[in-house]
Amino acid sequence: MTRDVRVTVLGSGSWGTTVAGLAASNAPTLLWARSPETAEEITTQHTNGRYLGDRRLSSKLRATSDLQEAAEHADVLVVGVPSHSMRAVLTQASPHLRPWIPVISLAKGLEPDSRKRPTQVLEEVLPGHSVGLLAGPNIAGEIAEGLAAAAVIATPDTAVATALQPLFARPRFRVYTNHDVLGCELGGILKNIVAIASGMGDGLGVGMNTRAMVISRGLAEMTRIGEAMGADPRTFAGLTGLGDLMATCMSSASRNRRVGEELASGKSIDEVLEGMTQVAEGVKTARSVVELAEEHDVAAPIAVEVDGVVNSGRTPAQAYRGLQKIAAGSEYEAA
Amino acid sequence: MTRDVRVTVLGSGSWGTTVAGLAASNAPTLLWARSPETAEEITTQHTNGRYLGDRRLSSKLRATSDLQEAAEHADVLVVGVPSHSMRAVLTQASPHLRPWIPVISLAKGLEPDSRKRPTQVLEEVLPGHSVGLLAGPNIAGEIAEGLAAAAVIATPDTAVATALQPLFARPRFRVYTNHDVLGCELGGILKNIVAIASGMGDGLGVGMNTRAMVISRGLAEMTRIGEAMGADPRTFAGLTGLGDLMATCMSSASRNRRVGEELASGKSIDEVLEGMTQVAEGVKTARSVVELAEEHDVAAPIAVEVDGVVNSGRTPAQAYRGLQKIAAGSEYEAA
Repeated sequence: MTRDVRVTVLGSGSWGTTVAGLAASNAPTLLWARSPETAEEITTQHTNGRYLGDRRLSSKLRATSDLQEAAEHADVLVVGVPSHSMRAVLTQASPHLRPWIPVISLAKGLEPDSRKRPTQVLEEVLPGHSVGLLAGPNIAGEIAEGLAAAAVIATPDTAVATALQPLFARPRFRVYTNHDVLGCELGGILKNIVAIASGMGDGLGVGMNTRAMVISRGLAEMTRIGEAMGADPRTFAGLTGLGDLMATCMSSASRNRRVGEELASGKSIDEVLEGMTQVAEGVKTARSVVELAEEHDVAAPIAVEVDGVVNSGRTPAQAYRGLQKIAAGSEYEAA
Repeated sequence: MTRDVRVTVLGSGSWGTTVAGLAASNAPTLLWARSPETAEEITTQHTNGRYLGDRRLSSKLRATSDLQEAAEHADVLVVGVPSHSMRAVLTQASPHLRPWIPVISLAKGLEPDSRKRPTQVLEEVLPGHSVGLLAGPNIAGEIAEGLAAAAVIATPDTAVATALQPLFARPRFRVYTNHDVLGCELGGILKNIVAIASGMGDGLGVGMNTRAMVISRGLAEMTRIGEAMGADPRTFAGLTGLGDLMATCMSSASRNRRVGEELASGKSIDEVLEGMTQVAEGVKTARSVVELAEEHDVAAPIAVEVDGVVNSGRTPAQAYRGLQKIAAGSEYEAA
């Protein structure tokens, strides 16, 4: 290679900013922020107060609010905008992108209406690019604080993932590779729904045994749906499945878990969402996942109950009674 | 059947007492306590203050300190004594047992020196009996308080497990069946070691990302060891594997997790064990599991580090640095 690989990260939420901060220590990195004030703050003060408080970012990280400048800079494009605005942002950026460059998604939701996964949207908007993702048990605030963590880069051709690994790996941030893009992506999407269910349980005071049961049965449900869609079931036992699920269900920083907890305290879904700065993807994807499970003829009792609470006015207490009604038979049976 | 099935539970620790309390609502149940005072307290006051505080047990539950009386009562024998004293107690009880009756283990440790699993010990001491186990994410105190939970009865012949299910199931205690006795038993044994590792992480303040990583990689390690020994890898994704692992790692009531936390605070293993009323099985089994993994030629970095801290004077901080040194490659690779 004749010069350093340049990284562009689109989206200055907590995770996009954190990944940009990691990459900036390894390669010239430019972060695109929608707001000029945020871009200015990141470049000059090395903080992103709105999403990461006073945590210090790499002083090498530069930010811009000019999408064309950001797109032209990229030898590797990292997409950290939420799934519902990804298509619009990428359509605007695409005329300024170099051909062939790898595009890595950070998003963990389905596109509303189309129900497409982030990498599917990227493949449609950016044909000819190698599309993959970075995922795992990655609570942004902890990584920004320098606590150790691990993640997975998944690309269909593992050689691409292996080449990208050194751009994101840090002494305290281990990056594994995987070629099962579908499985890794579904883990990040489906776990948000289980996290809402787990949060409802916390709010209802159901105890650790039930919480562990919901998370175990949730992982089984995620694996069933993923396998029916063509993913490798082993992926769900890894960092992007179980790992991400556990970090999300255990952490008080998880937005999806908090949604569940606040619903259990008696708030309506509108009241809960009003109080949040960032998107809780599970709220938007619950219905889509129920539809996907039906299409693939797979039992998804947890997604059905979460969808009922989020979209049809069921209470968390009713949802938990619903989950307890499922008959207990052989452990290997569907539900 | 001409009369009600009678259940005997041996061992009045928190879990033995709790299981006896569940069974007492379904069938005439007698609990054997080593101490006459405990037996008296359970029968007359319906509490077991030493292990379950002032939580009320079923008023139908009777207890005795007479092992012969307990053995003679049993149509189903439940063994809730720790793995290190199981052989002695059962050898003493065996002359008084009816032939053929099913014997269900609650223990989650290996026999010291022989490294045998509880069901192996039971099969040796009680040949001709159908031997199985009851396991899952079951924090005794929560179940004694009436919070919902689920467990698995595993017997080689699922028909036996299905027949036993109604003896233990309660409206808030779901009982699944499984025929993979080996996998279910190994889950309960191996998770104690991961719980010690997870507790060390909590004590060191490593954060949720690393905690989720250790638990995920821990489950992968448990599954690898189990599969090499002949268990069904799917079992480890179920209640007795992942479910029990999570409840143990998340709960402040878990003895093994607390051992890890206290080791991380700088106490020696002897100081930690001195302060505990009940056995933390993981401390005794760590070395045996390392040896088992070596015999089966399986990588077990978490067990190796826990064994190092518990038996060879390594510090928890050194153990975590050790775990971080393992190279990150493909997610599917051994370590």
